[in-house]
Amino acid sequence: MRGAVLYGPRDVRFEERDAPKIVEPTDAIIRIAAACVCGSDLWPYRGIQQVTQPTPMGHEYCGIVEEVGRAVTAVKRGQFVIGSFFASDNTCPNCQYGYQSSCVHRELVGGAQAPLLRVPLADGTLVPTPDMPAPDLIPSLLTLSDVMGTGWFAADAANVKPGATVAVVGDGAVGLLGILSAKQMGAGRIIAMSRHATRQRLAQDFGATDLVTERGDAGVARIKAMTGGIGADSVLECVGTQEAMLQAIQATRSGGSVGYVGVPHGVALEGQALFFAHVHLHGGPAPVRRYLPQLIDLVWKGQTNPGKVFDLTLPLDQVVEGYRAMDERRAIKALLRP
Amino acid sequence: MRGAVLYGPRDVRFEERDAPKIVEPTDAIIRIAAACVCGSDLWPYRGIQQVTQPTPMGHEYCGIVEEVGRAVTAVKRGQFVIGSFFASDNTCPNCQYGYQSSCVHRELVGGAQAPLLRVPLADGTLVPTPDMPAPDLIPSLLTLSDVMGTGWFAADAANVKPGATVAVVGDGAVGLLGILSAKQMGAGRIIAMSRHATRQRLAQDFGATDLVTERGDAGVARIKAMTGGIGADSVLECVGTQEAMLQAIQATRSGGSVGYVGVPHGVALEGQALFFAHVHLHGGPAPVRRYLPQLIDLVWKGQTNPGKVFDLTLPLDQVVEGYRAMDERRAIKALLRP
Repeated sequence: MRGAVLYGPRDVRFEERDAPKIVEPTDAIIRIAAACVCGSDLWPYRGIQQVTQPTPMGHEYCGIVEEVGRAVTAVKRGQFVIGSFFASDNTCPNCQYGYQSSCVHRELVGGAQAPLLRVPLADGTLVPTPDMPAPDLIPSLLTLSDVMGTGWFAADAANVKPGATVAVVGDGAVGLLGILSAKQMGAGRIIAMSRHATRQRLAQDFGATDLVTERGDAGVARIKAMTGGIGADSVLECVGTQEAMLQAIQATRSGGSVGYVGVPHGVALEGQALFFAHVHLHGGPAPVRRYLPQLIDLVWKGQTNPGKVFDLTLPLDQVVEGYRAMDERRAIKALLRP
Repeated sequence: MRGAVLYGPRDVRFEERDAPKIVEPTDAIIRIAAACVCGSDLWPYRGIQQVTQPTPMGHEYCGIVEEVGRAVTAVKRGQFVIGSFFASDNTCPNCQYGYQSSCVHRELVGGAQAPLLRVPLADGTLVPTPDMPAPDLIPSLLTLSDVMGTGWFAADAANVKPGATVAVVGDGAVGLLGILSAKQMGAGRIIAMSRHATRQRLAQDFGATDLVTERGDAGVARIKAMTGGIGADSVLECVGTQEAMLQAIQATRSGGSVGYVGVPHGVALEGQALFFAHVHLHGGPAPVRRYLPQLIDLVWKGQTNPGKVFDLTLPLDQVVEGYRAMDERRAIKALLRP
């Protein structure tokens, strides 16, 4: 089969790879219905995160179970399933507390930008849909594997409550789906920080009530001015840079909450500044597995449409163009059809 | 009158000062019933925090209202009152959210190691007791001004719930009262990190069920071993150093909470380590005012006795010995009687 492999900065290739096989008896093999390029794939693509060996890419996936290992009991051949980028047993104490992305047996899933994918710990990781989905549901279902689950966790970690004033730092796909999540959770006011017209439009479509184009201190000052001088109740940090993290913390009111899901690159928080900011801080790799049943239900019933975040659809063999379009910010997020 | 004034490292003097006067119409003057030396007074006393000018010391207080400004309406002359080290109007949005120590009009109270003290924003800051307290209640009431309010906030910020496993980093007065607070909130297991026999005894008296004498990585490993490998539900950070903060974060389970109240000195949190720790982080200067009515009630009814934390009582004119005894860790906390 052919799949995407990253060799180094801006060197992603669509090339022949061995098809995945069952390695552990708890594995499953999935035939990918749709995959996509993640904002976090851009860190190594841009050379910000080092690539030490040719790496099969892609960790967002949904599709039909092709084969299961002999120890798999809950997942059946022929089911349409979705799983997280972190495989988890869903039984260890961390999983039981709802932090499956810190499962004591967690494994990163990789190589989903291909026709077939091996998923470890299949019983704990994969959640089947109620039935075979209609084709138009597949983009939304695919988002639940990471980008929507991560946006949802950002809003949940930022403690978004009905009526709350929410600000979202980052207008990438995660930030945009953070807006959708906050809206779904009943936020009263949602301030999107964005200066890109197409992203602003999607932000508003997803529920943003206000747009702030300023960044850094000016962005913080703007949000304070909009919130009676004190800051937002909940702020979602969906970037991972120092500037974005400080912007999020400073834009939050005393006692408010920052939910941070951008994988930190070069972030360091100074103790006294954090101390006197008086905010709640929570985040990390999203425990997507926790939210899958609820989010599948919302998508299945047509109550949310996160699939709109894909503004570019390509056949899988054009995956290289998907990376380029996202790197150059020509596309928000690229869907790949095997 | 004579009060404590800090001139520089280890140079605290008990000397003649002007008695405080009403400056703003919202001020009150309190006749101090009891004062004390705070762990945070040791930062400048030890020269870790610079003293730029002779500074009247002391910010923990309770006593009888001697005089009020013309704009003060809620607080009356002759009442016994307790207030926080941060004066607050108790009406601004931050106060209304329960973060009075981030009041938009907040002012540090200073100079309480003296017979008389000026308290700004008296109506917002001071809370009267139901009646004139019996003398044996005064030490416990005094703790509510800072050290007990801060320990309580640490436990609250660490989200201590009935039955929870709690660890406390720091065996100073705040850490010890954090133990008492966690016990009061129904914690099932309370692990005190302490290697000092007298502090261990008081920790156990306050409700600690386990003692850990190891520090740093060894201390973290010990707590993990005691909690099925995953860490405590709630960890109270009551020191303020980098080692203590990392110890607290690493000893907390995924999805658990760190409540941090030690004023940070040289603390910097690396983004990725924090991200993958998956903990909730909350803390800062304790909003003591929020808790005063509830804590006064608990002390008044004899349901808690935080005053036990004072293991040295001195007449005010021996305040210098109070600093020395705490600096040399001969005393946990020194009570001063004017």
